[in-house]
Amino acid sequence: MPGSTFGKYFRVTTWGESHGPALGCVIDGCPAGLELCEEDIQPYLARRKPGTSAATTQRKEDDLVEILSGVFEGKTTGAPISLMIRNTSQRSGDYGNLADTYRPGHADYTFDQKYGIRDYRGGGRSSGRETAARVAAGAVAIKILRNLGISVYAGTTAIGPVTLSPEQLDTLTEADFITARSNAVGMPDAASAERAMNYIEECRMQRDSVGGVVECRIDGAPAGLGETVFDTLDALLGQALFSIGAVKAVEVGDGIAVATRKGSENNDKIRCKNGKAAFESNHAGGILGGMSNGDQIVVRAYFKPTPSIYQPQETIKKDGTETVLEIAGRHDPVVVPRAVVVVESMCALTLADLLLINMGAKMEHLEKLYR
Amino acid sequence: MPGSTFGKYFRVTTWGESHGPALGCVIDGCPAGLELCEEDIQPYLARRKPGTSAATTQRKEDDLVEILSGVFEGKTTGAPISLMIRNTSQRSGDYGNLADTYRPGHADYTFDQKYGIRDYRGGGRSSGRETAARVAAGAVAIKILRNLGISVYAGTTAIGPVTLSPEQLDTLTEADFITARSNAVGMPDAASAERAMNYIEECRMQRDSVGGVVECRIDGAPAGLGETVFDTLDALLGQALFSIGAVKAVEVGDGIAVATRKGSENNDKIRCKNGKAAFESNHAGGILGGMSNGDQIVVRAYFKPTPSIYQPQETIKKDGTETVLEIAGRHDPVVVPRAVVVVESMCALTLADLLLINMGAKMEHLEKLYR
Amino acid sequence: MPGSTFGKYFRVTTWGESHGPALGCVIDGCPAGLELCEEDIQPYLARRKPGTSAATTQRKEDDLVEILSGVFEGKTTGAPISLMIRNTSQRSGDYGNLADTYRPGHADYTFDQKYGIRDYRGGGRSSGRETAARVAAGAVAIKILRNLGISVYAGTTAIGPVTLSPEQLDTLTEADFITARSNAVGMPDAASAERAMNYIEECRMQRDSVGGVVECRIDGAPAGLGETVFDTLDALLGQALFSIGAVKAVEVGDGIAVATRKGSENNDKIRCKNGKAAFESNHAGGILGGMSNGDQIVVRAYFKPTPSIYQPQETIKKDGTETVLEIAGRHDPVVVPRAVVVVESMCALTLADLLLINMGAKMEHLEKLYR
Amino acid sequence: MPGSTFGKYFRVTTWGESHGPALGCVIDGCPAGLELCEEDIQPYLARRKPGTSAATTQRKEDDLVEILSGVFEGKTTGAPISLMIRNTSQRSGDYGNLADTYRPGHADYTFDQKYGIRDYRGGGRSSGRETAARVAAGAVAIKILRNLGISVYAGTTAIGPVTLSPEQLDTLTEADFITARSNAVGMPDAASAERAMNYIEECRMQRDSVGGVVECRIDGAPAGLGETVFDTLDALLGQALFSIGAVKAVEVGDGIAVATRKGSENNDKIRCKNGKAAFESNHAGGILGGMSNGDQIVVRAYFKPTPSIYQPQETIKKDGTETVLEIAGRHDPVVVPRAVVVVESMCALTLADLLLINMGAKMEHLEKLYR
Repeated sequence: MPGSTFGKYFRVTTWGESHGPALGCVIDGCPAGLELCEEDIQPYLARRKPGTSAATTQRKEDDLVEILSGVFEGKTTGAPISLMIRNTSQRSGDYGNLADTYRPGHADYTFDQKYGIRDYRGGGRSSGRETAARVAAGAVAIKILRNLGISVYAGTTAIGPVTLSPEQLDTLTEADFITARSNAVGMPDAASAERAMNYIEECRMQRDSVGGVVECRIDGAPAGLGETVFDTLDALLGQALFSIGAVKAVEVGDGIAVATRKGSENNDKIRCKNGKAAFESNHAGGILGGMSNGDQIVVRAYFKPTPSIYQPQETIKKDGTETVLEIAGRHDPVVVPRAVVVVESMCALTLADLLLINMGAKMEHLEKLYR
Repeated sequence: MPGSTFGKYFRVTTWGESHGPALGCVIDGCPAGLELCEEDIQPYLARRKPGTSAATTQRKEDDLVEILSGVFEGKTTGAPISLMIRNTSQRSGDYGNLADTYRPGHADYTFDQKYGIRDYRGGGRSSGRETAARVAAGAVAIKILRNLGISVYAGTTAIGPVTLSPEQLDTLTEADFITARSNAVGMPDAASAERAMNYIEECRMQRDSVGGVVECRIDGAPAGLGETVFDTLDALLGQALFSIGAVKAVEVGDGIAVATRKGSENNDKIRCKNGKAAFESNHAGGILGGMSNGDQIVVRAYFKPTPSIYQPQETIKKDGTETVLEIAGRHDPVVVPRAVVVVESMCALTLADLLLINMGAKMEHLEKLYR
Repeated sequence: MPGSTFGKYFRVTTWGESHGPALGCVIDGCPAGLELCEEDIQPYLARRKPGTSAATTQRKEDDLVEILSGVFEGKTTGAPISLMIRNTSQRSGDYGNLADTYRPGHADYTFDQKYGIRDYRGGGRSSGRETAARVAAGAVAIKILRNLGISVYAGTTAIGPVTLSPEQLDTLTEADFITARSNAVGMPDAASAERAMNYIEECRMQRDSVGGVVECRIDGAPAGLGETVFDTLDALLGQALFSIGAVKAVEVGDGIAVATRKGSENNDKIRCKNGKAAFESNHAGGILGGMSNGDQIVVRAYFKPTPSIYQPQETIKKDGTETVLEIAGRHDPVVVPRAVVVVESMCALTLADLLLINMGAKMEHLEKLYR
Repeated sequence: MPGSTFGKYFRVTTWGESHGPALGCVIDGCPAGLELCEEDIQPYLARRKPGTSAATTQRKEDDLVEILSGVFEGKTTGAPISLMIRNTSQRSGDYGNLADTYRPGHADYTFDQKYGIRDYRGGGRSSGRETAARVAAGAVAIKILRNLGISVYAGTTAIGPVTLSPEQLDTLTEADFITARSNAVGMPDAASAERAMNYIEECRMQRDSVGGVVECRIDGAPAGLGETVFDTLDALLGQALFSIGAVKAVEVGDGIAVATRKGSENNDKIRCKNGKAAFESNHAGGILGGMSNGDQIVVRAYFKPTPSIYQPQETIKKDGTETVLEIAGRHDPVVVPRAVVVVESMCALTLADLLLINMGAKMEHLEKLYR
């Protein structure tokens, strides 16, 4: 009942604080026989790493992952996979003044209310650094999916007011998203990416921060993934994305736009191609009745601006005293670019879990494996 | 692993098809000693019932709930509560032509892909009728919450293009939402409600359907509800709302608007009132770090237009043949008004679950109950 | 967290009290495409029914099961299967004097301590009658298993001092266990069964009750069922059997006898037959390292004598007053014969669950179903 | 659904292989505010350590535990507690000849059947070494219980034919069990312990191994722990104990003896003492209706002899070839003495979990914490 585990079959339990000795995760439920080594995971952690551009903080985090269990002679064994990343760059002194003061927009107050105690160093458990463990687990899920012909890729589609238009989004391919990984904001359009960078720089000068949007797409998923009626594909993607710290809205397919449409505009007409349903449009974002329909799955997560800003802010202390806080330390003016790989990871974890759960959906499957 | 259960402590398992003999749910984990009888539940089912206005279908569903277990001498006993609602108004003949043809925007195709078999009568398991079981369970959760001083209420805030403005929403109180239950669209502003009614009528004339938005607010929740890092309050509300059939987007607090804001605009300043944090604004929607912060919790669900429309639609048959479908039967041109109580129910189930889970958050709680 | 659900994939949630209007269960996770109707279930309920012999009570319970959902045109659809049995034979008057007095050996005191309220009519939720729901669910599990070539069968192997010897047990086949269903105690040896009947009659004359042992065997299970390290086959069978009211000990394979053996006596030598392991003995009861090894699975449950006896017993009232209780009503002098089918059911539920969970054990399985 | 997690609220996930770089566990759901440091855990690991006497192997395992998360300034924070123990004493060379040959009585064959791959070094995941992680987690549970006045203690009550009599057991106190920890077999009777040691030595000389029994007692548990109807206290203790590798039988209270008793002999009479039920006997082992009754909880686990013996054994290779195996390496001739602390740990984990789950049993509890 505690909340550090995601998934029901492919189960990932993350642990660790921003400034503890290490953080990591345990994956229980990874099928045996998957080729896996640290090199499969490290590139994803690199994408999440700060300090690679002006858009992110200058902290140095090596984020070297160690596989502690569950892999033997280069293959998963079916045993739990323990992944650990040592924290090497903590400078606790930076955060000491936050022991008794609640940062606006952060979890400080709520953690104290819930637990009566709080690891205030760098946000402790509520630090964005916890997502490193998710990314490590996500890399394993992504490898499983790829082995089955499913690809998951995300990119930044908005930074503050700099937004890719629906028309632009329509033309983008997986290749564009992958190319975008090399620009500092992860935006799959070079001109927009540059404007976004400028906007971020402008905000940084104002000692302020900025939000944005990440879109994730999944190609190749078979129809039928998602469990009626509560663990539907959209419901679990919703949970997955909202569990990322700064996300305040999630859309599936055309999202909020559907509320102002008529049914005749919004229904995706069905045609037939190679014996399978081929949808003429994809307003549904690849999900019908809570299950994948074989089309591209599309979701978007809306991120708030980083709450840690360098302006004085009104707040209170633990004892209720009102005060004005000035935050020190190193903080990203925007989390969105680094969140791209986190979004990918959470979507991949969701898909891997549902793929495994779906195996028992019909007697035909059991007969194929057991008879 | 199947998906018919919601919640980890206050666990609700729904069952039943649109045109089977009955539907219902089992609530396991309801604390003992709660006064409960059918009359506590019936009014919520009445709010979900169709046929009460021009905005909804003319099917007659009595939806009488029967408590089959878990209550003794007017109080819950801690045993599972089984709630059943007989289906009395099925007219299977209406749906027979759908056995082999997939309705666009519906779950027909995906169910067949997943299970290889599908109860096509009235949508079967994927029918909106399944939500009656959620509403029955939600009524129990709402009663628990009310006993602890927590109120949950929702209303329609948009029907197609007819939208309540942020300024209007700001002035609305719980009383306005409750008054709105008596208008046909559940919109807490009489003038807007009338415009919405007209718009729906217009769409109906065009043999078309329409979407909309439901906002839910929760007052009185203590700070600290929500489990780090995956079962956070927002993540579980996200799952809860996306699990409702037609929902394609969910917002917490200011939702998508935050993505274009700066941190200095979006952070809610904290002041102190009666020894507790008092937030000067509520952009966060009452959730910080995945936990309730003591302020009003605010979420919104965006509904697509009813996919069942009376216009000819291109689609395919089970065997892949392309065809044109004309849907018969009785269908709401808009699900939003009836979904208001479903949204309330899902939010209440989420809160009740998290309240129970939160009890073991600190040793102090254990000592209070056990020493 | 509540405890009314068994299984993780093939999930059975039971509900209902002895003297409420009905009892039943919801099965979530039954694969689609299984032929199923009431007639598949009813014979199992008949075997659990009281009143069929002198060894059981004279209460009349028709125990007609109704399938309320999850089956369409004679096949399971993947949707939850709701099974309901109306209670038709309650005579609440019989139990009224138990409202305030705790029956020794029963759950009365502990329920009051836990919940502060108790449905005292016929034991309420803690009544053996709850097992009817398990048997209904078990019948579905048994059908799945049979479709995959797995058979589950149990029999009474001891009633009080009347015990089948290890040598007798060794010679018994599935046919003997099935034949035994027609004798009043379910014992697969006619002479022993008669002696057991006489012993029960003797105890009944003394207004006393008697315990016994049920052995269950499972043939045809593939090797590899059971999840390391906590949800092993033996651990889950242990939970399954101990969850039956009167069970106070459980053995796997040779059980307690192994504690006094040497390794050289207890290890089962492995030979090869048709390319699979063939064990020269089966001390292990078909389970190695927590998984099925392909050999016959053997477990035994030890039942205490029925606590409801017709002799005066020292006990206390709800207010702490000491008193002497004389129980009225109709009670089995022995639960063992009726428990045989309950043991079968719990074992079958465990196996069905592990079969489904095992599907994702290796990438090879995923590739077979998805590529 | 994979099986490496124990508990529903106080959730322990273990990971690690015998000869991997490390093993450990993550505890999610430990209440905040518990004082905790490595020194709280180390003594329990020391009790599990081999090499302390002739009864155990001569391998040297330091088993130093490291707390990687969840503790801040000496107290638990409510965040997951990650515990890690480096493996320092692996000598993989010893086990190389087991890559292709299945050891009788071990999990080798079943792991290969399930996963198609197996870490054969020292048993890999199925090694008894995995229990070190359970013991580390158990130490945390034991500390929580002790804070609430509950003590858990176990001891060896039989080694092969050397058994403590029921009369001896009746007179033993917690102090005797604690004293027993200093003798090499953990048996709370000095004379019996010596005889047991001699018997073990005798078996070792014969290149053979021996089984035994561990009894665990829990004092001070409040009445009402255990969740009806499947997650009862006895069912979960059953699962907990059967999940320990070598356990083949489990008893609660008088266990198998009850099957031959009459109800009049077996029912525990209830008297009143200090306003609470006082049972005149404890045949039930402190559990009625699946819940603790306030009396001492008593369970026993029966262990098979170590399957690794130094005699030639008939078995097969991976390819089906029949062969004769002679095991090398260092193996305990008996696991029972080292299993005592494992039994304590599993019982403590079960109790801690049920204590947390029980908090929401009645509205009165919610009102006490929330109103």
